[in-house]
Amino acid sequence: MKSIALLGYGTVGSGVYEIIEKNLEDIKNKYNIDLKLNLILVSNLKKYSSHNEFNLFTNSIDVIKNASPDIVIEVMGGLHPAYEYVKYFLEHSKHVITANKDLIAEYGEELMNIAKHNNVSLMFEASVGGGIPILKPLKECLGGNNIESIAAIINGTTNFILSKMYDENMGYFEALKLAQDAGFAESDPTSDVEGLDASRKISILSSLAYSKKIDWKKIKTIGITDINLNDITNAKSKKHKIKLLAISKQNDGDVYLSVRPVFVHRSSSIGKIDNEFNGVVIDGDSVGNLMFYGKGAGKYPTASSIFGDLIAIMQNQVDNSNIKLSSDFNFIKNFPLKSKWVLRIDTNFPDETTSQILDEFSNLPITIDKSGDNKSLYITVSEFTEDELLEKIENLKNISVKVTKYFLIYE
Amino acid sequence: MKSIALLGYGTVGSGVYEIIEKNLEDIKNKYNIDLKLNLILVSNLKKYSSHNEFNLFTNSIDVIKNASPDIVIEVMGGLHPAYEYVKYFLEHSKHVITANKDLIAEYGEELMNIAKHNNVSLMFEASVGGGIPILKPLKECLGGNNIESIAAIINGTTNFILSKMYDENMGYFEALKLAQDAGFAESDPTSDVEGLDASRKISILSSLAYSKKIDWKKIKTIGITDINLNDITNAKSKKHKIKLLAISKQNDGDVYLSVRPVFVHRSSSIGKIDNEFNGVVIDGDSVGNLMFYGKGAGKYPTASSIFGDLIAIMQNQVDNSNIKLSSDFNFIKNFPLKSKWVLRIDTNFPDETTSQILDEFSNLPITIDKSGDNKSLYITVSEFTEDELLEKIENLKNISVKVTKYFLIYE
Repeated sequence: MKSIALLGYGTVGSGVYEIIEKNLEDIKNKYNIDLKLNLILVSNLKKYSSHNEFNLFTNSIDVIKNASPDIVIEVMGGLHPAYEYVKYFLEHSKHVITANKDLIAEYGEELMNIAKHNNVSLMFEASVGGGIPILKPLKECLGGNNIESIAAIINGTTNFILSKMYDENMGYFEALKLAQDAGFAESDPTSDVEGLDASRKISILSSLAYSKKIDWKKIKTIGITDINLNDITNAKSKKHKIKLLAISKQNDGDVYLSVRPVFVHRSSSIGKIDNEFNGVVIDGDSVGNLMFYGKGAGKYPTASSIFGDLIAIMQNQVDNSNIKLSSDFNFIKNFPLKSKWVLRIDTNFPDETTSQILDEFSNLPITIDKSGDNKSLYITVSEFTEDELLEKIENLKNISVKVTKYFLIYE
Repeated sequence: MKSIALLGYGTVGSGVYEIIEKNLEDIKNKYNIDLKLNLILVSNLKKYSSHNEFNLFTNSIDVIKNASPDIVIEVMGGLHPAYEYVKYFLEHSKHVITANKDLIAEYGEELMNIAKHNNVSLMFEASVGGGIPILKPLKECLGGNNIESIAAIINGTTNFILSKMYDENMGYFEALKLAQDAGFAESDPTSDVEGLDASRKISILSSLAYSKKIDWKKIKTIGITDINLNDITNAKSKKHKIKLLAISKQNDGDVYLSVRPVFVHRSSSIGKIDNEFNGVVIDGDSVGNLMFYGKGAGKYPTASSIFGDLIAIMQNQVDNSNIKLSSDFNFIKNFPLKSKWVLRIDTNFPDETTSQILDEFSNLPITIDKSGDNKSLYITVSEFTEDELLEKIENLKNISVKVTKYFLIYE
């Protein structure tokens, strides 16, 4: 018998409950193990008084600690007390499965080491990409590769908003409201729309991919709140879309990481990931480009990943590898490759300024488009690193040309 | 120390050799294990006399049997003697990793049971989808799902040929030659172009997904050899592409399986998988639609998957589940859902016949297109199962209309 305690019973928690109940017999047949979900931690007990297994519910963590379950599934979210609970159970040699990206981005390394020290598993497949199997394939199946880059759409809310803006010419706030009504965005959408959620997830992915200690708070993170329909229209005119992309690249001792809205060609792998879907493109030196695509959030997709972790525990897959995350690397914040960029200029200026702009980007092909409403100008330039571009943007200020926004064209 | 014997040293074998050599130190750091590739079986020893580790090579399986390696990697291909060798080593409690889809499609269940009986692993991630992690995600990460369907492009050669026909208006034989010159197609391409390779792979995927005993030889398998440029042009006119799709669906006690060229919309997930790339779309009841995309063949992608299996063995991931493949299901050969179809008619007939054709498909919308060279007619019909369609096709013979080819429009 393996006993399970579930910490949290929100959308994901109830999905986990259902998927466990549904698969009890299958687990029994396959592994000769009686799984038993025997405690559920909630803050408001009364809310569940009509649940047909109300006897499983408790609002006391001590009740769960005393019950000493074999496996703890943490789906409370947030940093505290999730951190204290997870730490406690790992220290008491209980396997822990969590969907909590905030927790893993912040305390992942410490908790993994505690798990290892106590010979139990800490698993968190659901913390990145919802239902998409990505961490296990990355760590295990692709373990023979030197991972060179990751490019990922890993926040469904912002992808939904940007898709609506693109497909239906909807303004940002209207699209945000639609996302909230559809249940994709929370009432306080800050973490999603400012890119923080994606930042945490790319830090988890990149830490595992590169065996590097990555502090998600250091990642240059640009959200989508100041993207307007002129930007979208300009992207469309170039057969591109705007996507909130989490990017990381490893090269020698350098690791570049960012979360930023980029222009991507609409027929590229990334450009085809729309609405609430997520996609992760991984480039390994042996395997080449791989893409994993699916639903990055939601009750059942997330529960599916949690259950996958449970199966690994049924199969006694305790990770016996040495976790050594290196801090010995340069954390690069500006995009280091010579690339194309789109600059938005919202101010009007006299015609002669145009030639001064051309001068600034001399000898390299640039195009200048006006927005439909004549309020903005879009300049496309090529072959600059972000550092070089920022210098140009600084120079443009001397001729009173203020770049209000610039986008990487990700190819 | 873990000793490895490599059976075979062709393209994939040499890739495995390189990837093991490259990762020895990493494995030592992560798992405190000294991996040692200490024997390589080849048929023609002389060929490798200038190899810098020629001392590892042998042409005698007995030498390898006597050396009693911990892990055997089989990349010889073919059924015999691969089967006898793999069986021998499993029976002698050696872990076996193989890339051999023919072997797994034919003897997979027997060999898995021998492995289980001897408490060792038989792993074959590389046998389906080359470098794409698919079997482990399917078995483990998605283990909480009832898998409802799989649709996959899992033969790179045919996808390359069809892409060339579509993109460059190239005839079948010209495209085949190009595939052979590029090293994608073998000199005898039968197994690829007749769909047998894809059939074996979808049988492996489906056996694992549905826990059913699937005989790949029973799968309705239609290749791509009789697809012509008129077919391609007709697909284009409908914004579709023709793809060789391996399909399986599970519903109650029914399992439908086929490998067949289908029309798919060019902007669908499947429609975007081009050239030598593979893609597998899995639909699970909890997770929804997932897609795994990448290089389905080649030296390093295949070696990458084999190395992933090796990592699982380093982590002591011996599958302890009970393998029970059920035979208790209906094997459905004709596409069971009401669908759209495209029928090709190569014979000329008088105008009045057109109205007779319309009669046959009465009350349902149909369209009739002529091919550019006027040699063929394409009739698009909707809302028929394949059984119903075949009846209609039979009836058409009575009015001297011979359907020379028909395509499922897969949506």
